[in-house]
Amino acid sequence: MKIISEYIDKNKNNYINELKDFLKIPSISTDPEYNKDISRCAEFVKNKLKDAGLNNVKVIKTKGHPLVYGEWLKAKGKPTVLIYGHYDVQPVDPIELWDTPPFEPTIKNNKIFARGATDDKGQAFMHIKSVEAYLKTVGSIPVNVKFIIEGEEEIGSSNLEKFINKNKTLLKCDSVLISDTALYDVGTPTLTYGLRGLCYMEVEVIGPKKDLHSGSFGGVVANPINELSEIIFKLVDKNGRITIPSFYDDVKKITYKEKNNFKKLKFSDKKFAEEIGVSHLSGEKGFSTLERIWARPTMDCNGIIGGFTGDGAKTVLPSKVKAKISMRLVPNQDPLKIAKLFKKHIKTLTPNTVKVNVKHLHGAYPVVTPIDDKSTIAASKAMEKVFGKKIVFMREGGSVPIVPVFAKQLKAPVVLMGLGLNTENLHSPNEHFNLNHFQLGIKSSAYFFEEYAK
Amino acid sequence: MKIISEYIDKNKNNYINELKDFLKIPSISTDPEYNKDISRCAEFVKNKLKDAGLNNVKVIKTKGHPLVYGEWLKAKGKPTVLIYGHYDVQPVDPIELWDTPPFEPTIKNNKIFARGATDDKGQAFMHIKSVEAYLKTVGSIPVNVKFIIEGEEEIGSSNLEKFINKNKTLLKCDSVLISDTALYDVGTPTLTYGLRGLCYMEVEVIGPKKDLHSGSFGGVVANPINELSEIIFKLVDKNGRITIPSFYDDVKKITYKEKNNFKKLKFSDKKFAEEIGVSHLSGEKGFSTLERIWARPTMDCNGIIGGFTGDGAKTVLPSKVKAKISMRLVPNQDPLKIAKLFKKHIKTLTPNTVKVNVKHLHGAYPVVTPIDDKSTIAASKAMEKVFGKKIVFMREGGSVPIVPVFAKQLKAPVVLMGLGLNTENLHSPNEHFNLNHFQLGIKSSAYFFEEYAK
Repeated sequence: MKIISEYIDKNKNNYINELKDFLKIPSISTDPEYNKDISRCAEFVKNKLKDAGLNNVKVIKTKGHPLVYGEWLKAKGKPTVLIYGHYDVQPVDPIELWDTPPFEPTIKNNKIFARGATDDKGQAFMHIKSVEAYLKTVGSIPVNVKFIIEGEEEIGSSNLEKFINKNKTLLKCDSVLISDTALYDVGTPTLTYGLRGLCYMEVEVIGPKKDLHSGSFGGVVANPINELSEIIFKLVDKNGRITIPSFYDDVKKITYKEKNNFKKLKFSDKKFAEEIGVSHLSGEKGFSTLERIWARPTMDCNGIIGGFTGDGAKTVLPSKVKAKISMRLVPNQDPLKIAKLFKKHIKTLTPNTVKVNVKHLHGAYPVVTPIDDKSTIAASKAMEKVFGKKIVFMREGGSVPIVPVFAKQLKAPVVLMGLGLNTENLHSPNEHFNLNHFQLGIKSSAYFFEEYAK
Repeated sequence: MKIISEYIDKNKNNYINELKDFLKIPSISTDPEYNKDISRCAEFVKNKLKDAGLNNVKVIKTKGHPLVYGEWLKAKGKPTVLIYGHYDVQPVDPIELWDTPPFEPTIKNNKIFARGATDDKGQAFMHIKSVEAYLKTVGSIPVNVKFIIEGEEEIGSSNLEKFINKNKTLLKCDSVLISDTALYDVGTPTLTYGLRGLCYMEVEVIGPKKDLHSGSFGGVVANPINELSEIIFKLVDKNGRITIPSFYDDVKKITYKEKNNFKKLKFSDKKFAEEIGVSHLSGEKGFSTLERIWARPTMDCNGIIGGFTGDGAKTVLPSKVKAKISMRLVPNQDPLKIAKLFKKHIKTLTPNTVKVNVKHLHGAYPVVTPIDDKSTIAASKAMEKVFGKKIVFMREGGSVPIVPVFAKQLKAPVVLMGLGLNTENLHSPNEHFNLNHFQLGIKSSAYFFEEYAK
């Protein structure tokens, strides 16, 4: 291990420069305008896997954005680890709030700023570099390794899901290793064992067939913005509970033991509120902040647009308005079932003075993974060694839609070895990744292979 | 009159071509990007007034967009008419819904399509042409005439208001003639005697200091869109009444006589709903559609924007959201007082989990003008002659902010001789003006001068 660790230290600057090249590619998956960049990014990943010394490296076409695969299977009798990551990134707007351009990686205070830095290019790249460290020094890895890196995580992973279902032999493994989550806080080794699911909807409310003058028509025609406001307001009650009938039917209650574990983390609401710049937190009554984020379903309006939105004043009564509304789900909620309940509820909330269209844009199942598997134990030992601190087990409010698919289809435990931080602005302007954690992550990955081979 | 009328008929095509040139200038007053076009448009009006044969024609600078003045004062002992119009226009978005480009005037079915066609370039132009018809044929007008054409009607007329207050001698007149309203319906001569006022506000709700990941933060931080939805919803109760305390204090009740007059117009709710493409009308309980539009205050959301509004899905918890909300007012409501009440009410509706900024963008006083003045009687006779039908007196839901200023500062009755139609998409895509009404308007203006001089 000493050789590996020294090699990783020695190549620190090379890794950062390579990561910069990775981050320069605007691989935004949700916007077709970036399809060429997506292809270019898949090629980049392919070349990096080849350079690392992996075998059978290939870009795999799908109906959407391509997958990248690579493997090293020469550790006979040893377990096989499937490493997953994604090379696609979120859109960048509001672009004007970025201090440096999102696709010109910039280092400040040992943090690298760029879209995708922490979610997930920086984190996926750690494992490519740990494998490379083995193959470039001792020429072998203590375990068998398979990589599957996708380009549709930010839009629901639907093509990877199909690929997994059809290629269970190719992807067969003893555990899945994923770095796409966060550390509990700076310098604290963390494993995440639970992820929320997602049900992402779009609601369009349509009133008059065209925009009208608010003077000549105001007061006699239902205003779509006012009507949608009522709908949004009525989706959550005054106790912070979602009003959709049967919404909570499948929610697994938080156990006493888990509640207690959450408490032990001594989470500071005050510090958290300060960090995000609000004077008061809010949410579902009867639950702590960690319980609300990690183990309770929630609903948020992600965006809204309608009518005149420029500078100044325009006295228009708009024809329509559109909102994106998403729900985070917890075990055992089913996103498809929730989407149906949502649609039905929206229709009952809509008055007959307007029309409504409801679309289900994408979803993800919630998941909780076992924490007593050999792979999880190896990962916790590896991180404790590298960080020199005791491991923290936590859950996470976000979703990695593919995790429950891996767990179910490959019947393998999933190790969520996240090296990001929730304060690293993922999905926001000025996304960044702590370069110290990047380096610790490469080492944690390398130590994990060693521990898991024992 | 025969000579005048024949001259107007003969020049029909010339008028349309000149109007086209007027409509080609994108004189959008609310957007500073069009300031040069505004100046160009003022020059255009100046030249048209000169060409018509008016004296003392000048462009008058203000702190905002310029005014254009012209006069003909050689009708000794006869009354003086101040003719007002505006050369500025509304913005064009949503631009994608225009069938022909907004600044490329296009004639279809004897209607001219362009931004500003009916509001107000087409209507203001009628009076320039009627004056021209007199001066180019008989060489004199039966009454004295002053023109004041402004470039800020769509943004509140604040600089014209200041100009009026300081130039009462220059603008001294016996009546004010304005064509910036609508006919009751196609081919029906109409005079409008009431206009609603306006109080236009902007509300911004701010949550976290930056956009957040809805997974990592959803459910523990107030979402600005959800909060603003609640505020908007709570502004109007289930009976369609505005909930701002004291909002209705100064509202003048509709008299029995007026209610009866409205009824006589046999307004068809069904036809009206069909025209605007809604299955049901809605509004304040206890009032008819015409009462709601003409004589009751209303509130509408004119626009809203916040969070992710592009195609696809982005799981963001937005930092802020902004809405434009305006109220139409009726006598004797005061827009400044209403703005204060609105601000106060919004603050009481806002929870302590978010911040709120409320701005008063602009306003207009409501007005009702006398219908028994010599000028109104002359206008009704003129229109009845030209249209060959009995005049209809109506009120209007929109505002012409400068009308109450004229009435108050110049102590003159205002004649609202509108030739537009409320179905002509003013403030909407595909704005147009009926060219038959354009021609009837030029003649109505000419006959009015003759009647008023008697």
